[in-house]
Amino acid sequence: MINAVDVIRAKRDGRALTTAQIEWVIAAYTDGTVADEQMSALAMAILLNGADDREIADWTKAMIDSGDRLDLSRVGRPTVDKHSTGGVGDKITLPLAPLVASFGVAVPQLSGRGLGHTGGTLDKLETIPGFRTALSNEEFIDRLADPGAVVCAAGDRLAPADRRLYALRDVTGTVESIPLIASSIMSKKIAEGTDALVLDVKVGSGAFMKEVDAARRLAATMVRLGEAHGVRCTALLTDMSTPLGRTAGNALEVTESVEVLAGGGPADVVALTLALAREMLDLAGMPDADPAAALADGRAMDAWRAMVTAQGGDPDATLPTAPETDDVLAETDGVVTAMDAYDVGVAAWRLGAGRARQGDPVSAGAGVEILAAVGEPVKAGQPVLRLHADDPGRFEAARQVLAGAIEIGSVAPERRLVIDRIG
Amino acid sequence: MINAVDVIRAKRDGRALTTAQIEWVIAAYTDGTVADEQMSALAMAILLNGADDREIADWTKAMIDSGDRLDLSRVGRPTVDKHSTGGVGDKITLPLAPLVASFGVAVPQLSGRGLGHTGGTLDKLETIPGFRTALSNEEFIDRLADPGAVVCAAGDRLAPADRRLYALRDVTGTVESIPLIASSIMSKKIAEGTDALVLDVKVGSGAFMKEVDAARRLAATMVRLGEAHGVRCTALLTDMSTPLGRTAGNALEVTESVEVLAGGGPADVVALTLALAREMLDLAGMPDADPAAALADGRAMDAWRAMVTAQGGDPDATLPTAPETDDVLAETDGVVTAMDAYDVGVAAWRLGAGRARQGDPVSAGAGVEILAAVGEPVKAGQPVLRLHADDPGRFEAARQVLAGAIEIGSVAPERRLVIDRIG
Repeated sequence: MINAVDVIRAKRDGRALTTAQIEWVIAAYTDGTVADEQMSALAMAILLNGADDREIADWTKAMIDSGDRLDLSRVGRPTVDKHSTGGVGDKITLPLAPLVASFGVAVPQLSGRGLGHTGGTLDKLETIPGFRTALSNEEFIDRLADPGAVVCAAGDRLAPADRRLYALRDVTGTVESIPLIASSIMSKKIAEGTDALVLDVKVGSGAFMKEVDAARRLAATMVRLGEAHGVRCTALLTDMSTPLGRTAGNALEVTESVEVLAGGGPADVVALTLALAREMLDLAGMPDADPAAALADGRAMDAWRAMVTAQGGDPDATLPTAPETDDVLAETDGVVTAMDAYDVGVAAWRLGAGRARQGDPVSAGAGVEILAAVGEPVKAGQPVLRLHADDPGRFEAARQVLAGAIEIGSVAPERRLVIDRIG
Repeated sequence: MINAVDVIRAKRDGRALTTAQIEWVIAAYTDGTVADEQMSALAMAILLNGADDREIADWTKAMIDSGDRLDLSRVGRPTVDKHSTGGVGDKITLPLAPLVASFGVAVPQLSGRGLGHTGGTLDKLETIPGFRTALSNEEFIDRLADPGAVVCAAGDRLAPADRRLYALRDVTGTVESIPLIASSIMSKKIAEGTDALVLDVKVGSGAFMKEVDAARRLAATMVRLGEAHGVRCTALLTDMSTPLGRTAGNALEVTESVEVLAGGGPADVVALTLALAREMLDLAGMPDADPAAALADGRAMDAWRAMVTAQGGDPDATLPTAPETDDVLAETDGVVTAMDAYDVGVAAWRLGAGRARQGDPVSAGAGVEILAAVGEPVKAGQPVLRLHADDPGRFEAARQVLAGAIEIGSVAPERRLVIDRIG
């Protein structure tokens, strides 16, 4: 008979877990037979001793089997999802989902909330008055059929073992494990029922993966897991050493996304949106579609307005802003040569845009606005960052985090936004 | 500010914890700020990544400081404790404590209960009608002053952090860590207030430490911890590949112990009792005392009767026996060349002598009686082991465990009971 201590000991002592052990431990964790303190010890043993491909596949399958797998066949369109491993200023889902949907592709985006220095897509969309992120499975599938793009929270029955394990890992120092990250992401995406998936794996100071090699391993692991479950997958490794775009904060990022949908917006956000859109359209069988044209001619904006309206939001509403601002000034003349994504993310969090614990409230208007981005010239005394907060008492903590985040020199290094492609 | 996730991450990533981190995490675990699932992840990281001598010393001190440290100065005699890391048939405390007390030494024995395949001294003594193992601190110190030997459970205020951590490690696969074992044992012994301590570190299949090198490291670590806190320490590494004596089981072991106190009993139990007694008397400043004489002339038996009486027990009472027996027979002629301690311990547990979880009841009479020990000749069909149980339904499980435990050949290897001495 399998028991928790034997399973923990096996992994602790460097042995591969059997398929039966993995099936048992995930099912027993879901039903409460295996306690949190046992699962966290096992998670630490997996983090330190690793897991092979077969174990990761078994673990992922067991987490899918802990709940329901959605059937999207009645949507009547090809379904292609995008998942990002999370970064600073990463609002790409907002322009991307309607952009791809404007080509007749259904884009299911079961998204999360921000935790720590990374923002959450649901927190951003909820700054739009009326926007609902809690949909039933029926509503989710209806919205996929029409208007095609839907961004909402995952339901309770989608990989419930992962839901519990994810919260546990967050408080037990067991987040940074490729087997656990890969199985967590892919169990939810496979259970969601999408035909295809593009993975945006972030690399750099603002990402969980700081090194390209680790990010490449994570991406390859996830692509293999998807393919094994019949989900066509491609992964891009993209830069997260510098924040994406010129804003980090909930309503600030919505505003910037709408600029992109209107044909403008920061070049890096546009470029990454188009790169991911091309991968998604390719997986949907439309290799010749031209997403740039859909941004330019208003089709993407129409799809955005349809998506917001379908989820109860008012696309014409004024977004909340924070009442207080404070500028961080350049100390010398020169060119901005670096702006650390992690520091900017932590600053936005300290300003109120993020949360320290699940369930904490977030500020709609708080965040960081980048007035002079990497590669742009500045004069001493010129504002580089504008901090937004509901409470001016938060500025000091954000400024402390940002000390050392900005480098001013003579020549900015070239930024390679898409580092690699896997799949 | 220190928080649990940062402490876990530091050890996970192979860094030494600071003194402040260790003090914080033990205090926060004791008061409930650090949750079980966080402490188990940290324990697994310590087990896999180790801890240096300074960390182990800090950890031990923090666990002592989580409760009270007893002051035994009013006992008016030298105090010398003995601790065994636990084995099969290890009833040595029973004859040893009164034997050493018969020389005027106070022997404080805060003992534990059996868990898994190892027996517990308290479970054994509680088979004596009337014997009380729950004493207040006052009673404990009174009994040390007179009659001198006392064996009881540790109070709630003695290293409470260790009490909680010990139970947690048991269910999370984090027992087998030298830093955690050493700090657990020594925090209790130092808090108990003894002047000196002899450690009996078991090595072999029936012990937690299967290898001599690991046992030697554990012993040296504990001796250093004791000396650092002013407790004079000596450690013996002793063999636990074969059960000690001819019985494993609660009342069975009390009976055998009384035989030793009467000047008889199995040679290995007598030899180990005398070896440990000499170390304890040496630490008490009596290097020339002759414990063998005290076993032979009845002084040790008088001290046993005084100890049992002082704790409410009747030294003349008949001990409980199990109603059912079943013999395991020799399959061939020859000499018993091996009898696996672990298998015999598990068999005794399956027969009802041990418990699977803290708080389970144990049988007083159940256990294993060794009729033909290692080195003794047998004929095919002759009984080698006699199994005792309250319920004959338990014999089958015990027999399964014992398949392969007994080897019969031509020449038994010589047994080195005391493998090494440290201190």
